[in-house]
Amino acid sequence: MRMYDIIKKKRDGGELSQKEIEFFIRGYVDGSVPDYQASAFCMAVFFTGMTEKETADLTAAMAESGDTIDLSRFGTLTADKHSTGGVGDKTTLIVAPICASLGCVMAKMSGRGLGHTGGTIDKLESIEGFNTALSPQEFFEQVEKTGLAVVGQTGNLTPADKKLYALRDVTATVDSMPLIASSIMSKKLAAGAHTIVLDVKCGSGAFMKTREDAEKLAIEMVKIGNNCGRNTAAVISNMDRPLGRNIGNSLEVIEAIEILTGKGPDDLKEVCLTLATQILSLSKNIPETESRKLTENALASGKAFEKFKEWISSQGGNTAWIDNTDLFPKALFSYEIKADKDGYISKIDAEAIGIAAVILGAGREKKDDTIDMSAGIILNKKTGDKVSKGDVIATLYSCNQKAFDSAEKQFMGSLEFSKNEPNKEPLIYKVIK
Amino acid sequence: MRMYDIIKKKRDGGELSQKEIEFFIRGYVDGSVPDYQASAFCMAVFFTGMTEKETADLTAAMAESGDTIDLSRFGTLTADKHSTGGVGDKTTLIVAPICASLGCVMAKMSGRGLGHTGGTIDKLESIEGFNTALSPQEFFEQVEKTGLAVVGQTGNLTPADKKLYALRDVTATVDSMPLIASSIMSKKLAAGAHTIVLDVKCGSGAFMKTREDAEKLAIEMVKIGNNCGRNTAAVISNMDRPLGRNIGNSLEVIEAIEILTGKGPDDLKEVCLTLATQILSLSKNIPETESRKLTENALASGKAFEKFKEWISSQGGNTAWIDNTDLFPKALFSYEIKADKDGYISKIDAEAIGIAAVILGAGREKKDDTIDMSAGIILNKKTGDKVSKGDVIATLYSCNQKAFDSAEKQFMGSLEFSKNEPNKEPLIYKVIK
Repeated sequence: MRMYDIIKKKRDGGELSQKEIEFFIRGYVDGSVPDYQASAFCMAVFFTGMTEKETADLTAAMAESGDTIDLSRFGTLTADKHSTGGVGDKTTLIVAPICASLGCVMAKMSGRGLGHTGGTIDKLESIEGFNTALSPQEFFEQVEKTGLAVVGQTGNLTPADKKLYALRDVTATVDSMPLIASSIMSKKLAAGAHTIVLDVKCGSGAFMKTREDAEKLAIEMVKIGNNCGRNTAAVISNMDRPLGRNIGNSLEVIEAIEILTGKGPDDLKEVCLTLATQILSLSKNIPETESRKLTENALASGKAFEKFKEWISSQGGNTAWIDNTDLFPKALFSYEIKADKDGYISKIDAEAIGIAAVILGAGREKKDDTIDMSAGIILNKKTGDKVSKGDVIATLYSCNQKAFDSAEKQFMGSLEFSKNEPNKEPLIYKVIK
Repeated sequence: MRMYDIIKKKRDGGELSQKEIEFFIRGYVDGSVPDYQASAFCMAVFFTGMTEKETADLTAAMAESGDTIDLSRFGTLTADKHSTGGVGDKTTLIVAPICASLGCVMAKMSGRGLGHTGGTIDKLESIEGFNTALSPQEFFEQVEKTGLAVVGQTGNLTPADKKLYALRDVTATVDSMPLIASSIMSKKLAAGAHTIVLDVKCGSGAFMKTREDAEKLAIEMVKIGNNCGRNTAAVISNMDRPLGRNIGNSLEVIEAIEILTGKGPDDLKEVCLTLATQILSLSKNIPETESRKLTENALASGKAFEKFKEWISSQGGNTAWIDNTDLFPKALFSYEIKADKDGYISKIDAEAIGIAAVILGAGREKKDDTIDMSAGIILNKKTGDKVSKGDVIATLYSCNQKAFDSAEKQFMGSLEFSKNEPNKEPLIYKVIK
């Protein structure tokens, strides 16, 4: 077998066999297939696409290219949730305890924030004492005990994807549905859960800018998951505004606690319940209506909140902070942004808001940057809201007073106003299974 | 400027500016643009093509990437001829002296044979004493004196093309018209002649298998030449059979001498006259009919043969061999291939015949192989000829008797027979200017 023939076959629109795809991925990881052949291959895929079978084979080959997490000891109740990246997205902090309180096994790896999107690991570390670096043994023990653990990515997971993504990033071959879908799904397959529920964001703050693209990606990923023997569903949700009102690490934990204690904003609650419903329905194989009732009840009864505290406690977090969120350190400075005219907010560019939060210290521009856990933004007004001149639209928080000036400019640049009430876009576009 | 943006622009069907193309070529040669970006770029070109302007800019950038030959001292009468590779193609040996005898300046670099196609430099070296490695000064002095010199490729000509072709060869990005055309033409531009006449072969023995592809390539190359300020024409000729009857180095020189002395096969003579007519017409700016008469006369009068001898002599070749071709060393062994049935030869696969000649020792499989100058094939029958059982179809020559067996198999595999007389394909399909 020669990589040349594999590139040519793909270039000419042929369907690659599983063996050919495995030859490529194995060779790319061991170095026998050089970067210049891999990039030519990716560009050929950009133009000719991949069949459902090819995409599943590629994903499986990438998933198996390094370490994989074996969750088989927990049976088929293991579930994972993945978001394609959002701003103010604290759903994992809410969905995971809801599902775990209902018997699902949430053994999850999460990432850190980079650029305008936050990371669950950073958010959790804003809780005093919380340890995201469990050893494999500690991880499995905790999952066994509480049905829920979230740790940072360790081990050599999907090295093929890491190498290939870095190559695609510099060769203009990122924007290919089968390549995007296989990249995301390879990590989910390697992470071992039997049920995978994807939160595909669409809109200005998301990787997929249009509803059409988001749906294509969702379909592609669900097919991969199902073809690879996992229960898979995707929820397409609107990211034309940040999710919830709080952006920033401890601010987002506090908002998650609000939801878990029966408060908090409706949009965030609805997305969380939709995701939890899918996870429960798929992993326990029960109808959605029943699953929805169970998840609503877990939230309303405080069962999910109890599971949350149990989880935080078992990973070393100080639960006094959970019971009294005033204990979270506050930012040294705050700054109110006020409306300079009457009207409606017709659009919020979530990506631009995410960048404003980074300016305040809530995120990283580069991998090694340190984070100000207390920094961030609380939105008082969101898309569709009426504002009068002088109303507070948002409050900025930071330990660096000098950042307010450019953060305010960035923030205001992310808003659009209109005289008339704008049309309301649905929050959840579609569920794909 | 970033290579990433250039790849993306091409991928998305945009037209690159001259500056962007120069940035790519310069960066690729100096190493700042890595192979993996260049291969992704070539694959994008494979799918989206290049405009006429882009192709000309790419060709010029590659031509200027290394040394160039300055022939300006010879004015606008300098002419070059290039064949896209053929079997039994000894046209340079005939066309160059015809044109030089009529006042054109033929200062030419030629290549060596590799695989199934022969090389002019090897053929010339079958003449005792002939020196193909002139110094630049000797080269120019000889051109000044005789109007004709042919040397091997020296210097650092078109390093961008060399590097890019090697990359395309392993990334399945060879088959792209603008890339093929710019590769060939960059070498011609760097070689400095004012008039360029291309012999584009089509058929089984050629790089372009169909007449349609050959015509596309010819049009593309002629446009490049004209856009880069050179007089350019292309002759599309049939390579569904070898040109002439002799294949192999000294055998081809002998056949060229036959043509120059009023003998030899008609197909070879016709292709040579067509090429010479175009060269003369373009470089002297005279009508084709007049040009055709002049070239026919140069051949018939012996003027071209005199120029040939003058040329061979001035590069150190023994002209006694030219006057008496019996002086060329003969192969130790010969072997007649006879027809095993009655019928017509309906097809000869020239590429397969070329490989048979390599088996006999006439060519190289690898770059360092040595050549048996006397080895080769003389065809007694060609496409369209009637054969009776027992007729000699061809005679094989070699110093290695053991080669005959597999050469015969290879040879016979290259032939197709029919009961009825096959349709005659024209020898010259078209001239494009």
